[in-house]
Amino acid sequence: MIEETGPLASMKIKSFLSELASSSPAPGGGSVAALSGALGAALTSMVCNLTIGKEKYFKVQDEIKDVLQKSEEIRKNLMDLIDKDTDAFNEVMKAFKMPKVTEEEKKIRSKSIQEGYKTAAKVPLETARFCEKILDLAVIVAEKGNENSITDSAVSALMAKAGVESAILNVKINIGSIKDEKFVEKISSELSKLHRDSENKTDKVMKKVCSNI
Amino acid sequence: MIEETGPLASMKIKSFLSELASSSPAPGGGSVAALSGALGAALTSMVCNLTIGKEKYFKVQDEIKDVLQKSEEIRKNLMDLIDKDTDAFNEVMKAFKMPKVTEEEKKIRSKSIQEGYKTAAKVPLETARFCEKILDLAVIVAEKGNENSITDSAVSALMAKAGVESAILNVKINIGSIKDEKFVEKISSELSKLHRDSENKTDKVMKKVCSNI
Repeated sequence: MIEETGPLASMKIKSFLSELASSSPAPGGGSVAALSGALGAALTSMVCNLTIGKEKYFKVQDEIKDVLQKSEEIRKNLMDLIDKDTDAFNEVMKAFKMPKVTEEEKKIRSKSIQEGYKTAAKVPLETARFCEKILDLAVIVAEKGNENSITDSAVSALMAKAGVESAILNVKINIGSIKDEKFVEKISSELSKLHRDSENKTDKVMKKVCSNI
Repeated sequence: MIEETGPLASMKIKSFLSELASSSPAPGGGSVAALSGALGAALTSMVCNLTIGKEKYFKVQDEIKDVLQKSEEIRKNLMDLIDKDTDAFNEVMKAFKMPKVTEEEKKIRSKSIQEGYKTAAKVPLETARFCEKILDLAVIVAEKGNENSITDSAVSALMAKAGVESAILNVKINIGSIKDEKFVEKISSELSKLHRDSENKTDKVMKKVCSNI
């Protein structure tokens, strides 16, 4: 189903880990945030797949099929964001290397840097939004999905929450360098909401899971 | 450096995600816990690599080199645990499929199931221990490592913490089926300590990071 992916998502796990550990600053935490969310999405999809077609869960079939469709869509988006985050970081680095001798060059360079930071903030913001959406789905599968997979629903939520928090930090570090105050203000208030909502939803999943195991 | 790895760690990220999302219960949350920890270890290694050789961090060179050696060792162990967790789960499933017609068969089957559950509890316990160790290293790199990589230190901690919590749930679900009370009691008290310590260490990293960005 999912065929076209960026170079990082196409790497072997062990190679990605080696690349991550290396002295190159990219890929870094932003790409890991997206991967963490994609792992969370995949686990919610797994619980859906282990619920669909089971007689015991006859009443929730339609709802779980709908959850599966959404989690697979989000998984695809987050997988793309693994690469997009590293691309955005590299764009900022490229802008910093632009010539800055003449006044005109300085102006163009400065504008490119500011644009680069905006993209480098918007990409992890998108990651945080998708990860937060996974939490809505993890709540449903924890409450209504296959009970044998209850810990997988919980791990799905934990990975999605780690994805939200990691992505938020990557937005924050980039908006710290953005001069457009309105842009920064708007994003900052969204970050607070994403953080709060993701904590509440994860707590909901964990309470359900801890009452079951 | 790291060459020999199991079949899951050798998969492409996109393929692992597809396999995870499928209707097969393994790989599941236990393997994801180990991968989460390995991602955390890799990020701590990256911050070390971005600190070593930099004049500004001259005073901490030896300490950071020591951290790097430890985080790379842990990364290798956690990468192996991605596969070990799925293997342990499959062993339990295999034991359940053993013949149970005669009394002798029932006895052997029951013993194999109990042994299977013990391994399936011990493997994520090992994952939780390694993930918790990463947090000690993340605290050091957050406090003394390259400041430009401060969010990477934080994401390292968040991934390690998600690894600890996910692994703990996988231990708990398995010890729920173990009849050896002493075994269960001993593990349970270790789990409480791992949970508490990982929360405290992550808070320490997050406080340092939030005061910097």
